Amino acid sequence: MGILIKNGEIVTAADKFVGDVYCDGDKIVAVGSGLVKQGADDVVIDASGQLVFPGGIDAHVHMELPFMGTESSDDFETGTAAGVAGGTTSIIDFVIPARGQHLLDGLAMWKEKAKKAVADYAFHMAVTWWGDRTKSEMEQCVREEGIPSFKTFMAYRGAIGVDDVELIQVMQTAKDLGALVTVHAEHGDVVVALQKKLVAEGKLDPKYHALSRPAPVEGEATNRAIMMARMIGEPIYIVHLTCREALDAVTDARRRGQLVFAETCPQYLILDDSVYDKPDFEGAAYVMSPPIRPKGHQEALWAGIASGLIQVVATDHCPFNQVGQKDMGRDNFTKIPNGAAGIENRLGLLWTYGVLGGHIDVNRFVDLFSTQPAKIFGLYPRKGAIVPGADADIVIFDPKGSSVISAKTHHHRCDRNIFEGFEVKGKVSHTIVHGRVQYKDGKLDVVRGAGRYLPRKLEAPAAAREVR
Amino acid sequence: MGILIKNGEIVTAADKFVGDVYCDGDKIVAVGSGLVKQGADDVVIDASGQLVFPGGIDAHVHMELPFMGTESSDDFETGTAAGVAGGTTSIIDFVIPARGQHLLDGLAMWKEKAKKAVADYAFHMAVTWWGDRTKSEMEQCVREEGIPSFKTFMAYRGAIGVDDVELIQVMQTAKDLGALVTVHAEHGDVVVALQKKLVAEGKLDPKYHALSRPAPVEGEATNRAIMMARMIGEPIYIVHLTCREALDAVTDARRRGQLVFAETCPQYLILDDSVYDKPDFEGAAYVMSPPIRPKGHQEALWAGIASGLIQVVATDHCPFNQVGQKDMGRDNFTKIPNGAAGIENRLGLLWTYGVLGGHIDVNRFVDLFSTQPAKIFGLYPRKGAIVPGADADIVIFDPKGSSVISAKTHHHRCDRNIFEGFEVKGKVSHTIVHGRVQYKDGKLDVVRGAGRYLPRKLEAPAAAREVR
Amino acid sequence: MGILIKNGEIVTAADKFVGDVYCDGDKIVAVGSGLVKQGADDVVIDASGQLVFPGGIDAHVHMELPFMGTESSDDFETGTAAGVAGGTTSIIDFVIPARGQHLLDGLAMWKEKAKKAVADYAFHMAVTWWGDRTKSEMEQCVREEGIPSFKTFMAYRGAIGVDDVELIQVMQTAKDLGALVTVHAEHGDVVVALQKKLVAEGKLDPKYHALSRPAPVEGEATNRAIMMARMIGEPIYIVHLTCREALDAVTDARRRGQLVFAETCPQYLILDDSVYDKPDFEGAAYVMSPPIRPKGHQEALWAGIASGLIQVVATDHCPFNQVGQKDMGRDNFTKIPNGAAGIENRLGLLWTYGVLGGHIDVNRFVDLFSTQPAKIFGLYPRKGAIVPGADADIVIFDPKGSSVISAKTHHHRCDRNIFEGFEVKGKVSHTIVHGRVQYKDGKLDVVRGAGRYLPRKLEAPAAAREVR
Amino acid sequence: MGILIKNGEIVTAADKFVGDVYCDGDKIVAVGSGLVKQGADDVVIDASGQLVFPGGIDAHVHMELPFMGTESSDDFETGTAAGVAGGTTSIIDFVIPARGQHLLDGLAMWKEKAKKAVADYAFHMAVTWWGDRTKSEMEQCVREEGIPSFKTFMAYRGAIGVDDVELIQVMQTAKDLGALVTVHAEHGDVVVALQKKLVAEGKLDPKYHALSRPAPVEGEATNRAIMMARMIGEPIYIVHLTCREALDAVTDARRRGQLVFAETCPQYLILDDSVYDKPDFEGAAYVMSPPIRPKGHQEALWAGIASGLIQVVATDHCPFNQVGQKDMGRDNFTKIPNGAAGIENRLGLLWTYGVLGGHIDVNRFVDLFSTQPAKIFGLYPRKGAIVPGADADIVIFDPKGSSVISAKTHHHRCDRNIFEGFEVKGKVSHTIVHGRVQYKDGKLDVVRGAGRYLPRKLEAPAAAREVR
Repeated sequence: MGILIKNGEIVTAADKFVGDVYCDGDKIVAVGSGLVKQGADDVVIDASGQLVFPGGIDAHVHMELPFMGTESSDDFETGTAAGVAGGTTSIIDFVIPARGQHLLDGLAMWKEKAKKAVADYAFHMAVTWWGDRTKSEMEQCVREEGIPSFKTFMAYRGAIGVDDVELIQVMQTAKDLGALVTVHAEHGDVVVALQKKLVAEGKLDPKYHALSRPAPVEGEATNRAIMMARMIGEPIYIVHLTCREALDAVTDARRRGQLVFAETCPQYLILDDSVYDKPDFEGAAYVMSPPIRPKGHQEALWAGIASGLIQVVATDHCPFNQVGQKDMGRDNFTKIPNGAAGIENRLGLLWTYGVLGGHIDVNRFVDLFSTQPAKIFGLYPRKGAIVPGADADIVIFDPKGSSVISAKTHHHRCDRNIFEGFEVKGKVSHTIVHGRVQYKDGKLDVVRGAGRYLPRKLEAPAAAREVR
Repeated sequence: MGILIKNGEIVTAADKFVGDVYCDGDKIVAVGSGLVKQGADDVVIDASGQLVFPGGIDAHVHMELPFMGTESSDDFETGTAAGVAGGTTSIIDFVIPARGQHLLDGLAMWKEKAKKAVADYAFHMAVTWWGDRTKSEMEQCVREEGIPSFKTFMAYRGAIGVDDVELIQVMQTAKDLGALVTVHAEHGDVVVALQKKLVAEGKLDPKYHALSRPAPVEGEATNRAIMMARMIGEPIYIVHLTCREALDAVTDARRRGQLVFAETCPQYLILDDSVYDKPDFEGAAYVMSPPIRPKGHQEALWAGIASGLIQVVATDHCPFNQVGQKDMGRDNFTKIPNGAAGIENRLGLLWTYGVLGGHIDVNRFVDLFSTQPAKIFGLYPRKGAIVPGADADIVIFDPKGSSVISAKTHHHRCDRNIFEGFEVKGKVSHTIVHGRVQYKDGKLDVVRGAGRYLPRKLEAPAAAREVR
Repeated sequence: MGILIKNGEIVTAADKFVGDVYCDGDKIVAVGSGLVKQGADDVVIDASGQLVFPGGIDAHVHMELPFMGTESSDDFETGTAAGVAGGTTSIIDFVIPARGQHLLDGLAMWKEKAKKAVADYAFHMAVTWWGDRTKSEMEQCVREEGIPSFKTFMAYRGAIGVDDVELIQVMQTAKDLGALVTVHAEHGDVVVALQKKLVAEGKLDPKYHALSRPAPVEGEATNRAIMMARMIGEPIYIVHLTCREALDAVTDARRRGQLVFAETCPQYLILDDSVYDKPDFEGAAYVMSPPIRPKGHQEALWAGIASGLIQVVATDHCPFNQVGQKDMGRDNFTKIPNGAAGIENRLGLLWTYGVLGGHIDVNRFVDLFSTQPAKIFGLYPRKGAIVPGADADIVIFDPKGSSVISAKTHHHRCDRNIFEGFEVKGKVSHTIVHGRVQYKDGKLDVVRGAGRYLPRKLEAPAAAREVR
Repeated sequence: MGILIKNGEIVTAADKFVGDVYCDGDKIVAVGSGLVKQGADDVVIDASGQLVFPGGIDAHVHMELPFMGTESSDDFETGTAAGVAGGTTSIIDFVIPARGQHLLDGLAMWKEKAKKAVADYAFHMAVTWWGDRTKSEMEQCVREEGIPSFKTFMAYRGAIGVDDVELIQVMQTAKDLGALVTVHAEHGDVVVALQKKLVAEGKLDPKYHALSRPAPVEGEATNRAIMMARMIGEPIYIVHLTCREALDAVTDARRRGQLVFAETCPQYLILDDSVYDKPDFEGAAYVMSPPIRPKGHQEALWAGIASGLIQVVATDHCPFNQVGQKDMGRDNFTKIPNGAAGIENRLGLLWTYGVLGGHIDVNRFVDLFSTQPAKIFGLYPRKGAIVPGADADIVIFDPKGSSVISAKTHHHRCDRNIFEGFEVKGKVSHTIVHGRVQYKDGKLDVVRGAGRYLPRKLEAPAAAREVR
């Protein structure tokens, strides 16, 4: 059984043209004009007046993550389903072994959890400590498990954070393996010092979370990680970059020719730190790390996206309910679980604020949303493209109409939505996953466990591995 | 009659996949896999193992330009033919009215000259002075003549250069018309002062050309033009950017969110100012403005290209023979006609030094070489794309083998090649223009006058017109 | 008759110590401890608990300047008297010939006007156009008239502004003469364009003055002037620098080793552009060029002062009465005479906001207020120092107490004070000019015409003339 | 017994004038003109045609320092004597406790060693680890021992280096005490990683020392230390800054208004890394940390000095003999003791390359050489000034003539001089220490043990403690 999408405006990261797409089984097999049904039972979708994108890839999510004494509230099933509702058909989650836990033991746990995913998934492997087996396990991840990207935390010292000696070891090993290191860049020790000071002063409300990790703390760590990568000769990917200072560090590296990738998230583009002033502990919903920044940084991030200095917009989807989770930190901001939901809203926000807001065109939208994460992390061209041979993961987007984001209607398993009340333009009319329509007219039709593990391999062009 | 290109690796500015392209008449009509001949006389080209690009667009050339008392040595026939041999299937030349000459009178002259072109051509209109009719003529260019881009020279004061008052008028008018201003950015008055000083000191050799217009002179003018565009709210395109200082000005604007485009040329990426030390007046071959820069700038430009801060690689093709033209300035560098040939070599150099040199991947190559100039200047998707409906201008590139650039073998009508002796990898196996193979296995098969005028219209997305 | 100042805390640009100063006639003859009266009629001043500074030098004032159809309201008598009341004992005014008027004719006019000054004065010579005699007249200024500094205006195009060709000629001539060029840096043509646009839109209130010349307009011109000076190999002095953009241009030059001096004024350090929102045309009092800047720039300027990137705090004293002068532009901001009073308030403001505000220490205060202008403009060590042989121009400052600035009490001949209501700490207890107490306990005792012309000579150390 | 210096050109950090200085006992008591002998046995020195400076202060020296398995070859006697011969009359050495050793135990050791000094000395206290008593010992240093400045090493990990947690603790404690933290800024962990890599590759020669700690390693650490100081609200002093990257970090902080001090040394201003190419292990003489930098950085440092971004020129005097010490690392650069001699040459080099080289004037020379280190570290006005009440430590400098630096003639106890063969202009004709001529006409007349310990107190002006 195939699907024939007719007369849509097909948008890739470079091109835009009216045409047809034919999917056979779970693959795209033809892109052209005047395509016709191949089988009697082929589904024909009239996409006239609509846009046809490759399915979205969210390169930064945390489903059912054990963290700060609780667990993120979306599991792999609910989280990937929310993604499908929002046009995201693949995720890259993070295996995060505890300090002392072996990488492959962590991987086994995450593989088990992920079995219930409704859409495809891959893993980054976090290196949270350095032990005797870490090097060989990293090699096994790359060579046998299809995991060529490693995550490190410069924040969260004392828990999953690493020190610079450990980070250097990760980078050197990754370089030898042709793998990519990604970094959560905040100076963890300074954060701890500022937290202690604030707590000692009785400053315990959610808003002090932001003051305990101001922008220079992220800018510094970004600059440091880039220097280390430069000395070792390894590319580096900065996750959830939020501020002008960090973007300056990236820009300085790029103008020198160093290979640095940067990712940001809708919340950093659209919200400002006035959210922390909400009464009744509602600010807790916005407690994440790095925090939402003061006004002014958003404009810099959009400029970074428009200039190509930021390549990926992911979500850092990591929801916690206000009731029963966030309220663990009611008396002390340092105990509020860090994170929020977002996977379902990425497309609508990036379209509305990015494309319609005049910052990016539709090709760049597709690039940020799907093609770049696929290329950078080794999923391309299986994912991230509408070309013959690619997976039949496709979004049909109707630019007409609008809706309002709300926790009441979202598919995230979370009692809050940090974009509550924000209007977004257009709507996903169909999400096709594995060559089957799994979301249509607002209704999900997904199958628990249908998601497949995506082994990855970096086949980056010479340029991407050449480091100066 | 059609052309069916089979099993090539089709490369767009975003994607890369093995497939087929079918051209009917002068249009591409299908891109897919397993395509078959439609007519008995269809030509089938086996592109296995080869790359298939959209035809190149050289956004900056000067054919038979009257300049400095002589005329550039390639006419529209020989120049476009050299382009075809080098995989460039469309050019954008510049109508350059003399001071006092009306724009439309200049246009008439250039239209006449261009009739002999073998490949398609468009025009930028240079505004070299401001008269009573200039505003209405600019409007006529945009609305009736398909010329929505205007060129201004901040250098060449006293000849075709404009002062800032004139430039502001051009920018304001362009803004009202939704047109784009392009700028040759050098501080012309400082150049004149430095020339006078050098000449007075008896410093007359070609190498003093470079010293009469050092990098800060370009950096300043670039910064100034960007500020003026910012104040007026108009995008701006910097032609032939050559140096770190100018790139810094562009970067500062981009990180602020201002819409600034930048173009550079192979000579600025690959050569350094040691070329001016060649004996026997051979340095004259490299006399162009801006000049070839000292070592160090090249690396900055490559970084600018890799980071997306530079969008276009053009050539500023403007050849003059050493004998009979360049030698007019044998006794005084200020009399050496400024310019050199390059249209034929753009593809090979950008491939060899850019892609194989590890600075860019093949998608970015296509973007710089074809797609971006088409998009920025309003030729897309007729040009710059391999999608159904686009013109059948296609390059089939065989990455195997290599050749050596030489004036003895190039198709430029010029007795020198500034890349003489440079080895380039791969070769253009076929250039298809208007759905006909016009270059194959080293042989041109072009038709004088077959080139068509390309009226243009800027339909840039919201982002491209939104200026902050 | 001499003056013996006992037990004051003597503060120089470097040192601070309790000691005595003895002045004989109009010269300082001894600095030490335990000094005793030399003559029976020597005046002894007990300066215990007070600070002893060299008299202030205001390097940027305009007394009785014909400008925009009127004349600045302080003449050389009232203006210098206000200076004495504020601890400023020497001024450098500007000879500003009209376009077409010869420099020396202008000088003659200004010499005549200045005869009534109560304190010493020098002149900068403005070059407002370039004629056949300009070069030789500049030479005469330097060699015979003691005027080794020239002023140019990049703003005020069409009136006293010069174009870049003229500015280059001034710089080259100054370089040959060992003289210093000072620049009012705003892109005059852009200002004119923005004025026209605003006026056409009916935006005529004083606040549009600021919008017609925003910070990037000054930043650009500063950058341009610095580039021209660099190419010519001449030091440059930026007058009344007001904004981050211009300071960035200066910083970039300084970190390259270029010799660039920068001056700012109290109004740019202390006020922000909310002053233009005052009702009833009161915003007109703040109309000056460059305008008062938005919040944020002030902090950058203080940082520039603290870091040594700004060397001089002058006033650009150029008062116009609200009634009869400023109101000429009641219907059109472009007709409001540009300027405000300030000479009397410089010391109090710089002390209160600079020293007590924690930006600078007392040595740096003396440097900015007196020593640096003396050194840069060739008055040192006759002025700007408390050393044997220097002129006996001394301020005794009592750091106790405070007062409130008001047009009701100031000595400026002007019906407004732009610092109306600002509290300043401490007070000038004595101003000694030419070895005579001319201001004491709030009372002036000055003599019309007692001021002397100060011929200047730049004897800058090697460093100051060495330009890279 | 007094000393009367007649008719010298007295130079302070701000002023320059011909006059007399009278010293009584070990204090300066009068500065003026026409001073006369007070006692019959007063020594009169005719300083006509010579310059009179305050004695130099070398804020960064290491006498008899146990380091890398040996001890620096000058002890407090020979080292301070070499200083006197070079016009330096006070030093600030570093107490460097071993890891685990208590601060006050270290202090006791250093006090004992320093007893043999011929000139005055003070100590910085290094905090090389953090223990239970460190905080209270730091308080004791400040309150009882006159040591208000603390040194930390970001390099030398595993030995005397601290990690960021320790550094934060030092900064917070220093902030509470009103003390100043100084930092050796290199990313120690990256250095170790690069050393291992080079050694593993068999790259063991002295030149690899420089490659194991390239400029970005220093730039990063400087940026990091500045961020930490900013977050804590503490001023910071960067010792021996050597490169453009580090200066950029300082400049960015200063333009933001942060209080950052920077020090460099003559070797970083004058030498470039070609010294490491010397044959026969002579490159070892230049092994110090940070290393001598590639060409280009020197120009940036001079610009930093000229602009006021660098306040102090010290020496990091820490000599090791080639024979018996440096040769411990003949087979492995990581074992070469780091350091070189310099205290005697600071004046001549700074005068010759700085003043005569056109980078600074004589006032700035005095500031860098004497006044600024005195002010920053709390020795002013006892040291660093020629004012009544200051210590009678005075240099009389004859600007005529020249000499050549050589290990054969220097007073350093070291078999090499890294400035061997460099010509310096002028000569110290007299060094007066404690009101006694201790160096004259090339002959030392010093007394072992005559040096006194200098307790210090930071009485910095408001500005110096105000941190933003």
